[in-house]
Amino acid sequence: MCRFLAYSGQPIFLDSLLITPEASLVRQSQAAREAKTVVNGDGCGVGWYGARPEPGLYRGILPAWSDANLASLCHQVEAGLFLAHVRSATSGEVTMANCHPFASGRHLFMHNGQIGGYDAIRRSVEALVPDDLYAARRGNSDSEALFLAALGRGLDHDPAGALAATLAACQHLQHMKGIAQPLRFTAILSDGQDLHAFRWASDERPPSLYWRELEAGIAVASEPFGDTGAHWRPVPPGTHLRIRNGTVICEDFAVLQALAA
Amino acid sequence: MCRFLAYSGQPIFLDSLLITPEASLVRQSQAAREAKTVVNGDGCGVGWYGARPEPGLYRGILPAWSDANLASLCHQVEAGLFLAHVRSATSGEVTMANCHPFASGRHLFMHNGQIGGYDAIRRSVEALVPDDLYAARRGNSDSEALFLAALGRGLDHDPAGALAATLAACQHLQHMKGIAQPLRFTAILSDGQDLHAFRWASDERPPSLYWRELEAGIAVASEPFGDTGAHWRPVPPGTHLRIRNGTVICEDFAVLQALAA
Amino acid sequence: MCRFLAYSGQPIFLDSLLITPEASLVRQSQAAREAKTVVNGDGCGVGWYGARPEPGLYRGILPAWSDANLASLCHQVEAGLFLAHVRSATSGEVTMANCHPFASGRHLFMHNGQIGGYDAIRRSVEALVPDDLYAARRGNSDSEALFLAALGRGLDHDPAGALAATLAACQHLQHMKGIAQPLRFTAILSDGQDLHAFRWASDERPPSLYWRELEAGIAVASEPFGDTGAHWRPVPPGTHLRIRNGTVICEDFAVLQALAA
Amino acid sequence: MCRFLAYSGQPIFLDSLLITPEASLVRQSQAAREAKTVVNGDGCGVGWYGARPEPGLYRGILPAWSDANLASLCHQVEAGLFLAHVRSATSGEVTMANCHPFASGRHLFMHNGQIGGYDAIRRSVEALVPDDLYAARRGNSDSEALFLAALGRGLDHDPAGALAATLAACQHLQHMKGIAQPLRFTAILSDGQDLHAFRWASDERPPSLYWRELEAGIAVASEPFGDTGAHWRPVPPGTHLRIRNGTVICEDFAVLQALAA
Repeated sequence: MCRFLAYSGQPIFLDSLLITPEASLVRQSQAAREAKTVVNGDGCGVGWYGARPEPGLYRGILPAWSDANLASLCHQVEAGLFLAHVRSATSGEVTMANCHPFASGRHLFMHNGQIGGYDAIRRSVEALVPDDLYAARRGNSDSEALFLAALGRGLDHDPAGALAATLAACQHLQHMKGIAQPLRFTAILSDGQDLHAFRWASDERPPSLYWRELEAGIAVASEPFGDTGAHWRPVPPGTHLRIRNGTVICEDFAVLQALAA
Repeated sequence: MCRFLAYSGQPIFLDSLLITPEASLVRQSQAAREAKTVVNGDGCGVGWYGARPEPGLYRGILPAWSDANLASLCHQVEAGLFLAHVRSATSGEVTMANCHPFASGRHLFMHNGQIGGYDAIRRSVEALVPDDLYAARRGNSDSEALFLAALGRGLDHDPAGALAATLAACQHLQHMKGIAQPLRFTAILSDGQDLHAFRWASDERPPSLYWRELEAGIAVASEPFGDTGAHWRPVPPGTHLRIRNGTVICEDFAVLQALAA
Repeated sequence: MCRFLAYSGQPIFLDSLLITPEASLVRQSQAAREAKTVVNGDGCGVGWYGARPEPGLYRGILPAWSDANLASLCHQVEAGLFLAHVRSATSGEVTMANCHPFASGRHLFMHNGQIGGYDAIRRSVEALVPDDLYAARRGNSDSEALFLAALGRGLDHDPAGALAATLAACQHLQHMKGIAQPLRFTAILSDGQDLHAFRWASDERPPSLYWRELEAGIAVASEPFGDTGAHWRPVPPGTHLRIRNGTVICEDFAVLQALAA
Repeated sequence: MCRFLAYSGQPIFLDSLLITPEASLVRQSQAAREAKTVVNGDGCGVGWYGARPEPGLYRGILPAWSDANLASLCHQVEAGLFLAHVRSATSGEVTMANCHPFASGRHLFMHNGQIGGYDAIRRSVEALVPDDLYAARRGNSDSEALFLAALGRGLDHDPAGALAATLAACQHLQHMKGIAQPLRFTAILSDGQDLHAFRWASDERPPSLYWRELEAGIAVASEPFGDTGAHWRPVPPGTHLRIRNGTVICEDFAVLQALAA
């Protein structure tokens, strides 16, 4: 169970959200308040969009609280769109390739949750990744597999549709193996323009997700930070937020039982 | 505030103490019960004595809970004398050179506590290290400086005397700078034969220390693990334990105010 | 193109072969003489057998020449059977999970060479790994995939047969994809009793391999080290060495074209 | 003996100088042409100036050639002033704190060369660092000590004077200890406005240094890269280059024998 944060708006220094606030993401790495696991010390990462279509990406295996490179980057980099993540490993070792966000072309993706019983269906989940994307598979986590599989199902032009189809396929694989553990998916995706946030779980208990307006943009996060008052709005299960130019569009997000993967 | 454990006795596999028991040291890295800081994820280390007079030493910057090398080593290595440590950084970055135990010749040393106001007197504390040992200074922590300074004051033949003299000198340096923060020192030392454990603080509040008899030896640890019942005996402040061949000798350990460093 | 070394014989300190000799493996990490790539700085590893049936394993991402843990381990550990490797990455990132040796149960395996065109057939090669072993797939290198696939084909009781069958299946996959690049395989395997060394390539140009008698055992290595005179015997292509109790049995090793993977 | 590069001019993507060119710095990490050591695989670093007065800083212990974070940063970050370094360790372990550039406030500093016999005078060299800067001493290399000592001698307002005084003091310390090994100093410094490059050695054999005009700025580097023709001008020993707004001012740089440190 990890913690993450994303921002879309006027360019700001990353540390103004990730480090400075009370209960900031970097502090959540050592003491999260709403997570199943208090410590999220299994690596960290940040991705941001600048002048290139592809994002910048920094990932490290140290806990966020002791990562001097992360601190310096966040102090230096200004961006109008960024994603950051602190990891508590569920599947896959503590290795850079298993740290979030994952990047492919102009996309960034990060995930909080897990595919229940993943070890038993890992190969089948990986089989959802098309051949031309499989070479980009670097780690062995369920999250990276979900991302690559969704890329192959049209994540580029229909994020919600591609993710729903991928999750349906995963659920089908779980059912085929008789896996009772849930599929939980709270995730953030960006293509450099829109920011998409999803909260869904097969057992109606997805990891927490909140969003709020800031002075110059919108933040989405696993849990409130800074001013933790009424400004933060919980995102209900089964929701897709689409954020662009300061507008938040909230839609239902449903995963229909697929008949076949 | 770190957590540590040492063992002296018949050779045993390291994992039988460090990993297998309930509330083992590796688990304490993620959730210590008696420490000021719950998480001890700023690196880890283990030192052990084998066929050479000098100990083997493994130190890493990952949290102990995710360090696959540590797990494999502890599963493989058998030793009759070993020290292990999980770190929560107080002074000095998360870097291998700041991880405990520290080794010099046949000595191993690890420390839980800190020199209050160390930043203000670091250079003076380092000046306590004799020239010929200064080249061995690898990191920038207070603990390594204490060890090297004590080596220069006779740690080899009079461990308690050398450490008391070093601590007295540090206290003097604190006084000279008007530092009110305490000097706290719970530590373990070995030369490959004896195991020495110390618990002392200038404010009478040294970090916790316990010892117990096991089937085939003696364990000393920051906090009880495994069978946490009455077998564990707390070590009172101001104590020096000397352990050899299954015998524990308990002596007073006092630091006399030095007039000069 | 990596460099490696293995030893079978009376227990010796690892550093006596890996570090002390002129042109030792650790020095080869910085300046190999017979390798296609001079620098082998993409991580290192060592596995050894002790009192447990499973081997100890240490792997790190630093170059061997600057890995203090490797140096200390090699100074401390005595073993009668060990394998060591310095890596020059061909497929798979520089990550611990891609470092050799690979371990599974009581087996250790390390490989020098590569599956030509691996990226194009990676998924098919991985499909050679049986389901129950696939969860042990940690990295994304061709070498680890070969090892796991061979484990599934009887590596335990017929090492040469299982590896030949696996290599035949890989060649078949290369042919199906029209891959012209060769399959090269110089490798070492142990189950804690026997040491097996293989040298084979589809283009008759496998990476170099030598063996020699030492005072108390047999060494097999990518290139001679220490006394580099006539004592070292080159292993011809298409060879399988089986080493046990000081005896070296040399057999042909052929990979028959498989009709189907 | 390390390799480095600095740039001052119109903002450019870092990778256009550090990665894309033939014989770029990242390639020099694996095969330098004019260095005493061919491999510069003991870590790497890059510092750059953006919207803040203080620079951004990334340093890592992996060789530059396998550092994915370095590659991504260089692809993403645009800057009009940056410094980059690949290390071949002479003094100080391979640890992040010993990687260049070093940062303090708005200054960045990187060094190629060494203080001969440093181990014997390390403490005295460190004594040149004023108390208020000593807490910033993170590693144990001679280069960082030189930087901090020069900061204490007015590096801010008189870079050449402060460095000359520091080097004179170091030479004096060498003489006092009868050290015959040379003091070599090829270095680059910036305060976010000017770029200063120095080439000097006590034995007239400082590490190489070149500069050239590019389309939109000036580059200074250990050795030519990209178009390696007549555009690159060697910097003679005993020189200080001051670069600002496309202008290169070339002055003598002499270190007068100090009578006292």
